[in-house]
Amino acid sequence: MPHIELPPNLPGIVGPITQYPETGDLLNALAEALLRGPSSLTPGERETIAAYVSSRNECTFCTETHSSVARHLLGDRAEIVDQVRASGDRALVGPKLQTLLAIADKVREDGRSVTVEDIADARAAGADDKAIHDTVLIAAAFCMFNRYVDGLATWAPLEPEAYVDHGKALAETGYVRSIR
Amino acid sequence: MPHIELPPNLPGIVGPITQYPETGDLLNALAEALLRGPSSLTPGERETIAAYVSSRNECTFCTETHSSVARHLLGDRAEIVDQVRASGDRALVGPKLQTLLAIADKVREDGRSVTVEDIADARAAGADDKAIHDTVLIAAAFCMFNRYVDGLATWAPLEPEAYVDHGKALAETGYVRSIR
Repeated sequence: MPHIELPPNLPGIVGPITQYPETGDLLNALAEALLRGPSSLTPGERETIAAYVSSRNECTFCTETHSSVARHLLGDRAEIVDQVRASGDRALVGPKLQTLLAIADKVREDGRSVTVEDIADARAAGADDKAIHDTVLIAAAFCMFNRYVDGLATWAPLEPEAYVDHGKALAETGYVRSIR
Repeated sequence: MPHIELPPNLPGIVGPITQYPETGDLLNALAEALLRGPSSLTPGERETIAAYVSSRNECTFCTETHSSVARHLLGDRAEIVDQVRASGDRALVGPKLQTLLAIADKVREDGRSVTVEDIADARAAGADDKAIHDTVLIAAAFCMFNRYVDGLATWAPLEPEAYVDHGKALAETGYVRSIR
């Protein structure tokens, strides 16, 4: 049971952002800007980073939601998501995404652990300033979303199948229009 | 030196939110809603929670900025900030804020560590749903802000005196108008 009163039947973050729209609308707008706005990373790459960070933070709702969104966006490369969840920066995803996943996991632990070498590796693999910026902020933002979802003890379906339709809707319409 | 190119002479989060306004404006709007919007907690209490979480995450820029803002807002009770930074939920700040600081620190570590007993203690001390919600989201959001600031290796003055004017400006005009 959630720690505070939330609308029934709305899983994960959907409950608190619906109950408290003055912050909820901004959280949706931030997700939209981070995951769909202009970037040198594709929406599929960004959703994969979000799913990976959420998985490492063991947040079921965010992991399954963003894995589902990423699979829809990646199309015939959908298996990347599960490779990344299983193998992190050693997944078979190409050197650029590998180096960015390594940075994301360090940000998740403690921002100060990102080294000059980590950044040099990402640049050598083709990441520009915007890709590095977006990776750091996506990892940081999911440290927020994951804690918001779990700190309020919201409920979440455990089976990945329950996230297919919601993930498809988020993949197709984004975070601002698909919630309400 | 920051990991990516940022405007020179702008410390901490001010560099990246200025360089990347498409997300920066939303981060400022979120800070404004969280720390100044309608709440059953005063802005001084909320800034104290922000300073405490940032202090526990050892983020110099956010700790000193929000400590300075909190001192301005708390007026003749400004010493609360330093008590909280030194003693956490054992600071002499009254039972409601003590229980909320305990929740904030658990959210900071891992959202799942907040217990039914932590919430019951906060309610018994006078916290309502909105106070609990805001505490969880402030703690979660500063886990983002701290990682954004430190994951990009932004620079920050070390001496608290450097934050007095900026803290006063943020206390007086908030987060949306005072940056630009």
